Amino acid sequence: MEVGQTDIDEIIHLEKRALERWCRGDPSGFLEISAPDVVYFDPFLDRRLDGLSALTAYYESVRGKISASRFEVLRPRVQLVGGAAVLTFNFVSYGGSEDVHRWNCTEVYRRDPEGWRIVQTHWSFTGRHIPK
Amino acid sequence: MEVGQTDIDEIIHLEKRALERWCRGDPSGFLEISAPDVVYFDPFLDRRLDGLSALTAYYESVRGKISASRFEVLRPRVQLVGGAAVLTFNFVSYGGSEDVHRWNCTEVYRRDPEGWRIVQTHWSFTGRHIPK
Repeated sequence: MEVGQTDIDEIIHLEKRALERWCRGDPSGFLEISAPDVVYFDPFLDRRLDGLSALTAYYESVRGKISASRFEVLRPRVQLVGGAAVLTFNFVSYGGSEDVHRWNCTEVYRRDPEGWRIVQTHWSFTGRHIPK
Repeated sequence: MEVGQTDIDEIIHLEKRALERWCRGDPSGFLEISAPDVVYFDPFLDRRLDGLSALTAYYESVRGKISASRFEVLRPRVQLVGGAAVLTFNFVSYGGSEDVHRWNCTEVYRRDPEGWRIVQTHWSFTGRHIPK
């Protein structure tokens, strides 16, 4: 199946919609578009999380605890590789439960029968930035 | 083209061979298997690096300055997605220029005519670990 600009636009749209929900304390936006075999890194964990069940348990533990008044997705780039799409961007969130956070993010999406699904998420802090 | 266990083994082997050279101060192992359109994150940069030329300039600036006496690749996992392979692992390096470093790593490999090539690298510190 051919992939192109339509897929790129769709993936960036999916990600931003999930981020909007995330910044209102709702992790379900990401959970709904993550695949059963998703793997996950963030800077608060001491190892990779494997699978949607583990990610769901983790995200449910922060439901309602995160808020940001606005965010920016900087220079999103999608690399299309066969049935995979590699989305990378720098992310900045403002206000709410914290002041300013700067992040690096990599999402790998896969074209599943249900639509594009995340199979790998990696969040990290940009430039040794550590929130207080 | 079918992908399977042989590809998984090859990708882990490629990565470990590049890491061995990296831990001896030689970044060429990674440069030789990175694609022209590679994108790159690590915790020392203030944004994503785009392209092999930018990565080469960055890696040449640390040539000969990094050493580790040994390392561990923990729980490497390869997800095969069409012509892409998503390798994730936790990494620990010991000795040499630093004491102990703990990392999260995501590498996305693409099957190019020349062989498997890295199109996305993301290194970050595990569990808010920041080296001295």
